[in-house]
Amino acid sequence: MAIRYLDWAAGAPPDADLLAELARVAAQTFGNPSSLHEEGARANDLLEQARERTARAIGCMPSQVVFTASGSESNNIALLGLLSRKRRGTVVLAGIEHPSVYEPAKLLAEAGFTVKLVPAESDGAVSVERFSEALDPSTALAALMLVNNETGAIQPVGEIAEAVADASRRHGRRIHFHSDCVQALGKIPLHCGRLGVDSASFSGHKVGAPRGTGILYVKRELPALLRGGGQEGGLRPGTENVASIWATALACERRALGPEGLAPARALRALLVERLGRIPGCRFAPAEAAREPERYSPYIVSVSFPPIPGEVLVRVMSDRGFAISTGSACSSRDRKRLRVLQAMGVSEEVARSAVRVSFGYATREEEIEELADELAAQVGILGRSLGVAASGSR
Amino acid sequence: MAIRYLDWAAGAPPDADLLAELARVAAQTFGNPSSLHEEGARANDLLEQARERTARAIGCMPSQVVFTASGSESNNIALLGLLSRKRRGTVVLAGIEHPSVYEPAKLLAEAGFTVKLVPAESDGAVSVERFSEALDPSTALAALMLVNNETGAIQPVGEIAEAVADASRRHGRRIHFHSDCVQALGKIPLHCGRLGVDSASFSGHKVGAPRGTGILYVKRELPALLRGGGQEGGLRPGTENVASIWATALACERRALGPEGLAPARALRALLVERLGRIPGCRFAPAEAAREPERYSPYIVSVSFPPIPGEVLVRVMSDRGFAISTGSACSSRDRKRLRVLQAMGVSEEVARSAVRVSFGYATREEEIEELADELAAQVGILGRSLGVAASGSR
Repeated sequence: MAIRYLDWAAGAPPDADLLAELARVAAQTFGNPSSLHEEGARANDLLEQARERTARAIGCMPSQVVFTASGSESNNIALLGLLSRKRRGTVVLAGIEHPSVYEPAKLLAEAGFTVKLVPAESDGAVSVERFSEALDPSTALAALMLVNNETGAIQPVGEIAEAVADASRRHGRRIHFHSDCVQALGKIPLHCGRLGVDSASFSGHKVGAPRGTGILYVKRELPALLRGGGQEGGLRPGTENVASIWATALACERRALGPEGLAPARALRALLVERLGRIPGCRFAPAEAAREPERYSPYIVSVSFPPIPGEVLVRVMSDRGFAISTGSACSSRDRKRLRVLQAMGVSEEVARSAVRVSFGYATREEEIEELADELAAQVGILGRSLGVAASGSR
Repeated sequence: MAIRYLDWAAGAPPDADLLAELARVAAQTFGNPSSLHEEGARANDLLEQARERTARAIGCMPSQVVFTASGSESNNIALLGLLSRKRRGTVVLAGIEHPSVYEPAKLLAEAGFTVKLVPAESDGAVSVERFSEALDPSTALAALMLVNNETGAIQPVGEIAEAVADASRRHGRRIHFHSDCVQALGKIPLHCGRLGVDSASFSGHKVGAPRGTGILYVKRELPALLRGGGQEGGLRPGTENVASIWATALACERRALGPEGLAPARALRALLVERLGRIPGCRFAPAEAAREPERYSPYIVSVSFPPIPGEVLVRVMSDRGFAISTGSACSSRDRKRLRVLQAMGVSEEVARSAVRVSFGYATREEEIEELADELAAQVGILGRSLGVAASGSR
């Protein structure tokens, strides 16, 4: 049975031609870019070409592109460089951040920093006002993701960048502003330079590249966390994975979007929302995601059929050949998986029942329709077996 | 012109069939191993199979294998987890460590730890006695590589492991003992369990795997540095690069050696030493490397033709189609490249002139002979142009 894959937010199926490129480059350009001989020089040339193409795709200068091994690593490097600073301070972040921002912040707390979490509003977006209020003279770093990975809610990163710059000026202490943009690249229009952030993270495998390469956009100098041979401007040691980096640059180019690029996804998402909304007991998380689509990623819908546990629904749908997820893959196996939805005030019942449907550039209308039909059937069966009358409420 | 590649210590050319495996697995098993659906479960199964095969190859339990993105990352994780500890202390390491151990140690120093460097003896190996003397009640971590990447000198890791265990008992403070084994895997017989270390690092691309995967053997629990979705026992966040991990497991199996596996490399190295030794002015670094081959990696020879700068010789040889290196690729572009040889008492003149010849399982006798002939010719030309009479001394 061919799987209907609707978990693109956890990872996109890699483009076949990029896998071929990966193998070709790895075989032909295996020199170490730091080596002084011709093999090394050729590898280094390709690395710098990849940097230029990536920079154009994400809207920055080549010198601002640092290649890492993953989006998670990019987030860790951006936050944990603070550990090398003698002076402690406060770190402000949204309560809805990905574990690779949230958990490093907990390490900063262990190391003596104060961490302030700003909850999201009920629509899944952080309020500019509440975030700004959390900034004070002790703030060393602030972080806000651009697109939430569970709800798709687009965050007001640009406005908060202005608030952060303003607070930096007022308090006379430079606040580093970082944004996890992993779910934004190729999903909404994006231009690092215009975003106003000091650093931002991206992941190749979320946009069709093979796994193994993340990107850290660095506008403002960061203290180095990982150390070694000085590669990647001193921010990411280790022999550069040139072949994977090259494939990632091509994927970034391919998926970088102007505003017109959103139309097909918006149409698919509207179809999905319409079809899911017909299922008795359907609750969108948040409810606004159904009514105000322009404020959410066109590729993610989070939906709940309480009291059916999300985990049960994911497994039942998997048995029927559909890959969907509970929240983030990075939180799916532990008790922390309700954190994000609860940080935006979703009730525990709705949060426990939430499943995430996420799709990508290759998703077809039929897949969306088949998914909705199968979800309707399974929700009906599970609802009856749990002895609840479907309420029809949304 | 086909390049004669003799810089395997910087990175091995990847095995063609492993690149094909990488592309096959990446296309077929693209699920996120943390996802609850069938695609995720299949990816997770393959990940655990790779872990079992790797564990058998390096001599440990599957639960002790942590997949990282590189050997440098493994070293960083092993050392920098200490940053999360409230209590500071002393870190003892050899002065000849790779930058990915040496530079994180400098970060620990910035963060309040005391770092003690133990120099190597003139033969390139650290003395058990001197290393043991550096251990005291303040020691939190000790590190010693198994095979030095520049000279090939095999270090007394087993004996020092005993000294570390003894010091831990005497001082009532647990000392974590880490070993960078990147240049040992597939080059000398290796069994993590019998080595006596608490953790050890490996790199896939040094043994013919595609780039992108390192290994951290963890016998004794380590505090986590990088944080996120809890992957790899909480030590290495980010979606697991299953395809690269799989290819790395196969490469580890393929290259893991019993003692009998060394014979062909020993013969090639003897040929190389004999041919290089005939070149007027040849100085081996260290001199013992020529006389006591069993104490050095059979795959690395470091040689000097003072006063010809190593960098000049590498570039001239590259123009002639030979890839060799100055010291470590990770140090080749900066002023730090003399650190390792100077930490074993090599004179600045010899250190500046040193070039490293390193080979691998696919290297043929003819390549060694062609290299030696070309080196003899170029050393003669460069020596004359620098106006020095070749002294013939060794």
